[in-house]
Amino acid sequence: MTLVKARCTCAAHAPFEPMIIERRELGPHDVMIDIAFAGICHTDIHYAYDEFGRTTYPLVPGHEIAGVVSGIGSDVSRYQVGDRVGVGVMVDSCRNCPACKAGQEQYCTGKRIMTYNSVGRDGKPTYGGYSQKIVVDENYVVRIPESIPLDRAAPMFCAGVTVYSPLRHWGAGPGKRVAILGFGGLGHLGVQIAHAMGAEVIVLDIAENKRDDAMRLGANEFRLATDPRTFRDLAGRIDLIISTVPVDIDLDEYAGLLALDGTFVNTGVPAKPLSIDAINLLNNRRSVAGTRSGGIAETQEMMDFCALHGIGAEVEIISADQIDEAYARVLRGDVKFRFVIDTNTLQ
Amino acid sequence: MTLVKARCTCAAHAPFEPMIIERRELGPHDVMIDIAFAGICHTDIHYAYDEFGRTTYPLVPGHEIAGVVSGIGSDVSRYQVGDRVGVGVMVDSCRNCPACKAGQEQYCTGKRIMTYNSVGRDGKPTYGGYSQKIVVDENYVVRIPESIPLDRAAPMFCAGVTVYSPLRHWGAGPGKRVAILGFGGLGHLGVQIAHAMGAEVIVLDIAENKRDDAMRLGANEFRLATDPRTFRDLAGRIDLIISTVPVDIDLDEYAGLLALDGTFVNTGVPAKPLSIDAINLLNNRRSVAGTRSGGIAETQEMMDFCALHGIGAEVEIISADQIDEAYARVLRGDVKFRFVIDTNTLQ
Repeated sequence: MTLVKARCTCAAHAPFEPMIIERRELGPHDVMIDIAFAGICHTDIHYAYDEFGRTTYPLVPGHEIAGVVSGIGSDVSRYQVGDRVGVGVMVDSCRNCPACKAGQEQYCTGKRIMTYNSVGRDGKPTYGGYSQKIVVDENYVVRIPESIPLDRAAPMFCAGVTVYSPLRHWGAGPGKRVAILGFGGLGHLGVQIAHAMGAEVIVLDIAENKRDDAMRLGANEFRLATDPRTFRDLAGRIDLIISTVPVDIDLDEYAGLLALDGTFVNTGVPAKPLSIDAINLLNNRRSVAGTRSGGIAETQEMMDFCALHGIGAEVEIISADQIDEAYARVLRGDVKFRFVIDTNTLQ
Repeated sequence: MTLVKARCTCAAHAPFEPMIIERRELGPHDVMIDIAFAGICHTDIHYAYDEFGRTTYPLVPGHEIAGVVSGIGSDVSRYQVGDRVGVGVMVDSCRNCPACKAGQEQYCTGKRIMTYNSVGRDGKPTYGGYSQKIVVDENYVVRIPESIPLDRAAPMFCAGVTVYSPLRHWGAGPGKRVAILGFGGLGHLGVQIAHAMGAEVIVLDIAENKRDDAMRLGANEFRLATDPRTFRDLAGRIDLIISTVPVDIDLDEYAGLLALDGTFVNTGVPAKPLSIDAINLLNNRRSVAGTRSGGIAETQEMMDFCALHGIGAEVEIISADQIDEAYARVLRGDVKFRFVIDTNTLQ
């Protein structure tokens, strides 16, 4: 057992504070990771504020983790001490259901163990990446290619794979027109990835001041979601819309943009149920779908793809004492494009 | 110009009455069809009662037409006098948009000319199959294989292809579990077709007295949609749900039946918008989609497939004087499984 420093919150909206947590002894297949950076995902805020009504406190969030292997179990074959690695939203799954066997552990129908606010195989609560070290089964660890700095790699473990997976699944590539709805943490990675896949990329956002960054990162076009002309001009022209905005939108308006066999994919969970006119789906044989992060092999594939194409998250590095302030800034959209905690500041 | 007998309705809920309509002179690519049978589709009722608010009276419905070629234009190459043929929901389309060029004329984004309640290229209203003859461009005519009786073939031009198309598009076949929601005109063809494609077929309906027919036509299982156990037992187990019920349902309940990458497909248009919890779509990467009839080549493919597998509609033949009564019976679900009008009774 190893004691490590972490930051926790003890109640909804309580400020983050120091906490000493236990990391388990290395099992045969376990890897000890010295965490370098942990991204702040909007989901962390949902859990910290108990917005899903299922938070167990104290909560140590963080499921965008990048670091270096500092110890390995007796039977670990995939990693060595010194390897640059990371961990995403889950640290284990049932390994037996059809989804796990297909390498799509994110859809595991058995017991999936999340990186935080979950219960591990040892019966103890899981604590996330706002900490110095973490112990994870090697099968749920992903290698970070040398060319991606650890701070830029961290957000890719959730934000990156959450957009990579649907872009790959729904066939983004040459000849396809992809719209990324929301140019934030997920969106700015989605644009880079879709562009690298060869798709034509349109960014839809409500903030005109994001235009330059969108174009710089590979968008072919930037359109305001607040402008009715956007919906007239693009009607029936888009093959795939990846929505990164977990807010209530007029789905009929966006579905109207879809071309024949086009799909609108939600990555988040707005408060209200989705509502859409059935005839809007009949037109152009449209689909509305959801997607949830990505599998482990797919996360590795995403990392390797991003390394090949020079893609990384754009981050603002903060210290462990700035988490509350960062949360407030995320909530008012004041971040370009992801906060990452420098976990060396957890002293 | 040819004058033919028909049945029309002159106002919402007005009884059907005899009418003499004009059929155009044969153009170079036109085919004259002596109609033998015309199916009664629920859409006919929607239009007859002006439920979409866009009916032009007098209305001659009917887009499930089966008959025999009685005349051909000078340049017709595909059909000869005496050929057994039929016509579905459309009699022309723009022929230039991407959908038309892809043989998916049902999604034509230009001018699509519907079989009735539309305006033809000659600027005159189109009249449907509740009549003795119809003149249609050969490119929108489909051959009926010898083994399918004309009365059993008629409903396949709308009901049949409307279920065949999504079953084919979403990959119904061996190893796939398909649920047909609603065992009526569309559903009873959907069961036969999905079964012939090699899928495992589950029928979901609210009427226990449909069980025997469902099993006889190829269902592996019949489950009551009114029984909560249905939703518990089948949760996460179905790959494709084809909904043939144009009524408001609890979509969350049905989507919960979908397995990984499963799709719920609407063929109809319920009155209220569809509503679904976003997290229900995230789970298992589910999709909700819509589908609209089928293309011309696909309709031919469906006919040939059904002939090969001995599939046909189960029909109750009525005379032209029984249309009003048949509408009333359709509305109370009292039909097994499709009314077809014997157009020889249009004397």
